[in-house]
Amino acid sequence: MSLPHRHDLMYGNVRLYTGTASPELAGEVSQYLGLTLCDREIVQFPNENLFVKLKKSARGQDCYVIQTTTTPVHRNLMEMLILLQTLKMDSAARITAVIPYLCYARSDKKDQPRVPITARLIADMIQVAGADRYITMDLHAGQIQGFFSIPGDVLTAFTILLKYLKERIPTMYSPVVVTADLGFAKKGRNFAAALQTPIAFIEKRRTGNDARSEAMTLIGDVSYRDVILVDDEVDTGTSMIKAVDIVKKHGARNVYVVFVHPVLSANAARDLAASAVTQVITTNTVPIPEEKLAYFGDRLTVLSVAPLLGEVIRRANEGRSVGELFDE
Amino acid sequence: MSLPHRHDLMYGNVRLYTGTASPELAGEVSQYLGLTLCDREIVQFPNENLFVKLKKSARGQDCYVIQTTTTPVHRNLMEMLILLQTLKMDSAARITAVIPYLCYARSDKKDQPRVPITARLIADMIQVAGADRYITMDLHAGQIQGFFSIPGDVLTAFTILLKYLKERIPTMYSPVVVTADLGFAKKGRNFAAALQTPIAFIEKRRTGNDARSEAMTLIGDVSYRDVILVDDEVDTGTSMIKAVDIVKKHGARNVYVVFVHPVLSANAARDLAASAVTQVITTNTVPIPEEKLAYFGDRLTVLSVAPLLGEVIRRANEGRSVGELFDE
Amino acid sequence: MSLPHRHDLMYGNVRLYTGTASPELAGEVSQYLGLTLCDREIVQFPNENLFVKLKKSARGQDCYVIQTTTTPVHRNLMEMLILLQTLKMDSAARITAVIPYLCYARSDKKDQPRVPITARLIADMIQVAGADRYITMDLHAGQIQGFFSIPGDVLTAFTILLKYLKERIPTMYSPVVVTADLGFAKKGRNFAAALQTPIAFIEKRRTGNDARSEAMTLIGDVSYRDVILVDDEVDTGTSMIKAVDIVKKHGARNVYVVFVHPVLSANAARDLAASAVTQVITTNTVPIPEEKLAYFGDRLTVLSVAPLLGEVIRRANEGRSVGELFDE
Amino acid sequence: MSLPHRHDLMYGNVRLYTGTASPELAGEVSQYLGLTLCDREIVQFPNENLFVKLKKSARGQDCYVIQTTTTPVHRNLMEMLILLQTLKMDSAARITAVIPYLCYARSDKKDQPRVPITARLIADMIQVAGADRYITMDLHAGQIQGFFSIPGDVLTAFTILLKYLKERIPTMYSPVVVTADLGFAKKGRNFAAALQTPIAFIEKRRTGNDARSEAMTLIGDVSYRDVILVDDEVDTGTSMIKAVDIVKKHGARNVYVVFVHPVLSANAARDLAASAVTQVITTNTVPIPEEKLAYFGDRLTVLSVAPLLGEVIRRANEGRSVGELFDE
Amino acid sequence: MSLPHRHDLMYGNVRLYTGTASPELAGEVSQYLGLTLCDREIVQFPNENLFVKLKKSARGQDCYVIQTTTTPVHRNLMEMLILLQTLKMDSAARITAVIPYLCYARSDKKDQPRVPITARLIADMIQVAGADRYITMDLHAGQIQGFFSIPGDVLTAFTILLKYLKERIPTMYSPVVVTADLGFAKKGRNFAAALQTPIAFIEKRRTGNDARSEAMTLIGDVSYRDVILVDDEVDTGTSMIKAVDIVKKHGARNVYVVFVHPVLSANAARDLAASAVTQVITTNTVPIPEEKLAYFGDRLTVLSVAPLLGEVIRRANEGRSVGELFDE
Amino acid sequence: MSLPHRHDLMYGNVRLYTGTASPELAGEVSQYLGLTLCDREIVQFPNENLFVKLKKSARGQDCYVIQTTTTPVHRNLMEMLILLQTLKMDSAARITAVIPYLCYARSDKKDQPRVPITARLIADMIQVAGADRYITMDLHAGQIQGFFSIPGDVLTAFTILLKYLKERIPTMYSPVVVTADLGFAKKGRNFAAALQTPIAFIEKRRTGNDARSEAMTLIGDVSYRDVILVDDEVDTGTSMIKAVDIVKKHGARNVYVVFVHPVLSANAARDLAASAVTQVITTNTVPIPEEKLAYFGDRLTVLSVAPLLGEVIRRANEGRSVGELFDE
Repeated sequence: MSLPHRHDLMYGNVRLYTGTASPELAGEVSQYLGLTLCDREIVQFPNENLFVKLKKSARGQDCYVIQTTTTPVHRNLMEMLILLQTLKMDSAARITAVIPYLCYARSDKKDQPRVPITARLIADMIQVAGADRYITMDLHAGQIQGFFSIPGDVLTAFTILLKYLKERIPTMYSPVVVTADLGFAKKGRNFAAALQTPIAFIEKRRTGNDARSEAMTLIGDVSYRDVILVDDEVDTGTSMIKAVDIVKKHGARNVYVVFVHPVLSANAARDLAASAVTQVITTNTVPIPEEKLAYFGDRLTVLSVAPLLGEVIRRANEGRSVGELFDE
Repeated sequence: MSLPHRHDLMYGNVRLYTGTASPELAGEVSQYLGLTLCDREIVQFPNENLFVKLKKSARGQDCYVIQTTTTPVHRNLMEMLILLQTLKMDSAARITAVIPYLCYARSDKKDQPRVPITARLIADMIQVAGADRYITMDLHAGQIQGFFSIPGDVLTAFTILLKYLKERIPTMYSPVVVTADLGFAKKGRNFAAALQTPIAFIEKRRTGNDARSEAMTLIGDVSYRDVILVDDEVDTGTSMIKAVDIVKKHGARNVYVVFVHPVLSANAARDLAASAVTQVITTNTVPIPEEKLAYFGDRLTVLSVAPLLGEVIRRANEGRSVGELFDE
Repeated sequence: MSLPHRHDLMYGNVRLYTGTASPELAGEVSQYLGLTLCDREIVQFPNENLFVKLKKSARGQDCYVIQTTTTPVHRNLMEMLILLQTLKMDSAARITAVIPYLCYARSDKKDQPRVPITARLIADMIQVAGADRYITMDLHAGQIQGFFSIPGDVLTAFTILLKYLKERIPTMYSPVVVTADLGFAKKGRNFAAALQTPIAFIEKRRTGNDARSEAMTLIGDVSYRDVILVDDEVDTGTSMIKAVDIVKKHGARNVYVVFVHPVLSANAARDLAASAVTQVITTNTVPIPEEKLAYFGDRLTVLSVAPLLGEVIRRANEGRSVGELFDE
Repeated sequence: MSLPHRHDLMYGNVRLYTGTASPELAGEVSQYLGLTLCDREIVQFPNENLFVKLKKSARGQDCYVIQTTTTPVHRNLMEMLILLQTLKMDSAARITAVIPYLCYARSDKKDQPRVPITARLIADMIQVAGADRYITMDLHAGQIQGFFSIPGDVLTAFTILLKYLKERIPTMYSPVVVTADLGFAKKGRNFAAALQTPIAFIEKRRTGNDARSEAMTLIGDVSYRDVILVDDEVDTGTSMIKAVDIVKKHGARNVYVVFVHPVLSANAARDLAASAVTQVITTNTVPIPEEKLAYFGDRLTVLSVAPLLGEVIRRANEGRSVGELFDE
Repeated sequence: MSLPHRHDLMYGNVRLYTGTASPELAGEVSQYLGLTLCDREIVQFPNENLFVKLKKSARGQDCYVIQTTTTPVHRNLMEMLILLQTLKMDSAARITAVIPYLCYARSDKKDQPRVPITARLIADMIQVAGADRYITMDLHAGQIQGFFSIPGDVLTAFTILLKYLKERIPTMYSPVVVTADLGFAKKGRNFAAALQTPIAFIEKRRTGNDARSEAMTLIGDVSYRDVILVDDEVDTGTSMIKAVDIVKKHGARNVYVVFVHPVLSANAARDLAASAVTQVITTNTVPIPEEKLAYFGDRLTVLSVAPLLGEVIRRANEGRSVGELFDE
Repeated sequence: MSLPHRHDLMYGNVRLYTGTASPELAGEVSQYLGLTLCDREIVQFPNENLFVKLKKSARGQDCYVIQTTTTPVHRNLMEMLILLQTLKMDSAARITAVIPYLCYARSDKKDQPRVPITARLIADMIQVAGADRYITMDLHAGQIQGFFSIPGDVLTAFTILLKYLKERIPTMYSPVVVTADLGFAKKGRNFAAALQTPIAFIEKRRTGNDARSEAMTLIGDVSYRDVILVDDEVDTGTSMIKAVDIVKKHGARNVYVVFVHPVLSANAARDLAASAVTQVITTNTVPIPEEKLAYFGDRLTVLSVAPLLGEVIRRANEGRSVGELFDE
């Protein structure tokens, strides 16, 4: 009998659950694993309280709750927490929260006094609800892993984005990686190194007393080059769209905007599509609604993280290395 | 120097905070105590994540976060949790969550398999966010107090409702208390005993396979009597409105509907106002929006719990008995 | 190899332990499972301190400690806690406290100020002693499940009592279910619905200043009917015996008294046997000593919960659904 | 204003509570402190469950529960735990368990496999019930202090016993200290050193297969000397009585038996009084019932630990050194 | 009576303790506060185990343990942990670990698989030893604050460094801030903004397979400018010294090296002093031994953080805002 | 399929890790089990911070970290803690700290005020780092097992020492066991009983005010006898060497010094070798460096505990009794 099967015994069988936040992604993961999503009832009562009921017992099983935490953020978060507690009370053998995009990850430090570290609160809530482990992707800061007392797998979709870009690099003209946020400078450097391109930075600095007025300075060279603007997520898109403008003004040719989490809140999709961007390359950690997709036409490429999540779930269940997946 | 002042030293000074859920009630409490609500910034970003910042330091103070948890339930809940954590990280001396209406309190037991006990999850979340104590009112089940590991004051507004009714009882015609829910039978008995009236019950029972079709039976006598229908909360109001009909059919004269928490979700306000109810008597643990108030005209009486909450906060701060308030 | 066996590997083999509280019930459970009770030494020293020693190692096994917590309550409780800790320190793989009757379950809320919630304390003690799970039956309030942070199975013996009664219903004369305690009204309604009978209630109310003098009022109709008085437990029996009298005075024919837990403290057995009760139907969650059995002659029916407990232990070990047992 | 008063503000006022285990000792402590014991109701229901109710609020006070844990051990233990939880739920500012004699302290290590460390369980139970601190006396092993996660004061009554003996030493004939238990050898040496006497030991060793048959060997010299036999407690007294015999056989003159905790279970009092002992010197950490006192006549001296406990409570409340009390 | 005094009552009096790691800094803090350091014995036994004894009781006091965690790192860390536990067991009212430089802060995330997050372990150890709060300075990543469950004050010495530099800026020639580490890019930007200078970056990238060979690229302009190289700490100094070389090669005039924590391990002091650096500006969060100071002569400026630490301790004790100190 | 194999599935496969403290012992254990030590990188950076990286994934495995905690004590301790956390974060299935000699075990009680119980701190640190279980040997006091909340196996090497001595006893001349420390009196008695020899004691007592001047008194008879001096460890050896002198002065013939843990700090090895000792018999729980071994020549016998540790690891993994090993 082969090794994987032995461990499969140890943690019980994989059971996949999903809330209502990202059914397509959960469906793709279940297809990858050749497993059906477990049936469960999720009802929102008129008083907005959520009710969850599992259709079948999870007793003694290795359960995974796949739920991204974007809009409606608080409902999706609560749905996940209730699912976790339901599984715990139903005597599941092991419970893993699979959160492709973790909300509040940018509230990760007290950069001014009298503010919360909400990401720590989220970590505490996930644990107190009953999760034994978690799987998430490209946290805003790697340190957030230290907010959890439970072990977890923090995966990166940059490998997926890099694989896609490496195939296109040969066709680009003197490509250069640019980061729109200095907090991403180090990760941007790694990205550039993987693509074997130089790097440039955009520095934002407040001007005057008005919090809104910012001066943006390009540090480094982009003229006559194809620019790859990279970040971990695009939320309102303001900085990224300005960055597109700036690199264009400095003589960039094609501008590729690359990021993992397409939060695209407010008018981000509309405005980014209206910018001089050549192509947007992202993933499905956050579902992009049809009306937002429509703005981009064929200038948007969405790469799926489902095979990665599925493979990690399989390996977690079988007690096999996840690092191997990345040749680490 | 008087005793209260001594204890005031022990726990620091009272600092009142409020989220955005029930500013009027918080304002009334602050007026009762002669204290200004502490200034804080609460922002919802385009990605729905909430941001909180206290305007002044809470270090070494005895802090109270007043926040009811009705619609939008999950946002209000999260707002409270973030406020609690912010205070904890700002080194407040003691933090009390003041929750006039606690959401998910009806998810308090596993009355069927594979469901959560969400009220326990809520209790855990409040604690993990940093609350040292809590104050709440008329929990759906008194046992929920046992879900918390931290001490708390579970207050009742029935004393307020009783005080109001006792003045009106002499003008009523052979009043009888009726409960629309058998789970409230024992509390209904206590209510009737306090008013020195008899009691009757309405029994609901499912008929056939359809979960929706219920038979309601009146057990006890209401004919030619004024009926006081009593419950802890009115949510969708379906049962309560049916109860009004039934007691009317059985010959009731005036029908008073009395409850603590006016959740009034869906069309509860409209439909209850359209029933044969004579008067609705409730409190402000949940704010009733103008458009719902309008349905009732002068047939709705809202009694304020603010003096009670304010007095309990004062006594908690001064280390004085709360039970005294109720001659206990 | 079949599924159950696979899970049997996951949690180790079932090991049954019992304290000195209910050896007969433990014996029946072990017979059901075809397993011998594990040998252990339990000694009470002259200074009343208990000493426990396991005869064989429990390392890596799935251990169940069967102990009911009736008289001597505190010794039995402590015996269980010590057994749990002994197993934990001996590196058992999983430890489940099996408590057919949980003491202090009626101290489940603060219905007056400055009293404890002892049931929460009991839950905390069971957890701190080392239990990973618990199995218990018909808690006084379902909410007590929320006092535990560990998962558990709260079973009901009402299915057993209902099965027995359903066979006898056809021979009864216009049967009606009556509850002697309004706190049991909702569960009484469910019981009546399962038996397809009407329901009536007895309301107790204090009269005058004397705490002892109570007026009992029958609400509903029992005349010329066979009455099934139902409750979760009979302790001193005072209310139940008065209830027998009242329904008799209101014209009841046969009176059946049905309850899960035969605590029968003080003179409950003698006095209940001396009442007009036709038959008493209960279970063996609490052992009834010979001298108490003698009062009833053949008017007492004790149904065994051992097959239910045994089956749940088997399923817990094998990681199989318990809800299936009840067609849920 | 003096320093002590300042700290008195910090922890609230001292409130003394006592269970039913040692009312006399608690009374002496309250007299020492000039405080009345707080009124509370303790009822044992017919089903043996205990009920506790405080007569006045403990909110914001510095509360001390004085309860020794001897016979009935488990009831006394539970009474204390319930009192602790009641105080916690009533929002006491600080709660200290004052346990003159801690039960199960001899179950402090696994000296054989598959046995519990019940003293650790007791420590866990005291903490989970809500104690913030504890005060106890002469633990069987000092290491038990490390079983608690909360701080505590472990006091010794040997200072009291030594003070008494030092006055009598000049009248003794070549006194020698003897220990009846090798586990007490080191403490016995300290005791002898404080009295400036030599020391001798009695070694017990099992003979043959019978667990009961022990050979006792005197190591050291006692002939023509007054012997002071010393131990931390006398339980069944078997070893101590044999020790009296042995030192007598080896030519001892007067034999003094000195110990802190007069557990005196089974026939210890009767048999010790019937031995050749000259005088027994002990304390009131455990109450000795009249009938046991009667055996000794004037050969028993009971020294009170109440002033020590009272003084430590005062200093704990005022935030002053306890070590000072012992010139440490 | 003034406000500060009131709070002083709440937390007890300030007691300052220090280990053996940074006696000078602790002495300066005690001078600032006008308090003597509390006497304690710290002994290292021949078996290297440390022994700590407080000379006076800490009961009921507000205790601060000042200990930096540089060489010998593990001994200093353990010394601090033992001091914390000693204070806890001695019933201190509140215990704060004051750690000017926190060891292992750079092990704050899993940037490769199968490595620890040691900074989280350190946070856990500090808490489990008994700290109620902590005060530290310029953590390598602000997120580390989220590793703690206890509240803390994470202070910055950059305000001190900035104050010093702002006075010198007018004398500099076209100053530009440069960061030697892209992970410090954002903080470098803030530093440059505070000094109202432009910024440039040095990008390190590995070349070939050898982990040691790095290419460093200057991004931005430094020619004919005075360069302020800034970082949070200088450890081995390798990157910083290379950075001095590079900016010099690119035409920098004077080169100032500015950082908070002078770890200066291995030959950092010698080699940095031997570089083209004009002046080194740092603080005393880490003591610099005489022999290292000697390398720099008057080219080294050490600014003291003692007034800042002292003031924060005072405000923490008095329950007053710390943010005020920084006009926040 | 045999029972052991079944349990092997339950906990995953054994993975052995070792720090740098006792590679020889770890190697012997791995040989006993027929397993290779898992490859890991342990680096000490110039700033003394340790870095650990596992070469292969530990996910789902049953991991054992073998690390003794002698010189350099604090580094070795930290190395172990970091290894434990690394395994936890790498999702190991179960983690056991195997600590042949536990540092700080003699700091196990507050025998004077204002000192720590550092052994409890060590236990807390081991747990917070992520250990699920621990294995250690001959703790200074058995009670230390109660400091841990996790289960553990506290093994004894005295069985190994006894086995060795029993073979030599027939050749000895009227052997007598002597203990040099009264705290070891009871264990000494057990040792003597196992060897069927009499016992004698050495009493140390301070003389005068000087803490260093001690009088040592022999209690019992050693003249013309071979003496077996026994203790759990020899640290500085001062007491043991004095004991050798004393028994020699009292006419002992051969003197054997027997102990489990050869800490041998300071000049213990040199001085003990220079005493009148006939033979030293100990184990390899602590590695003895070559230069210390050299002092003894062939008068030192080191018995290996590796087979015992190896066998216990095997049984822990297979879920089999450890007590069986000792016929318990």
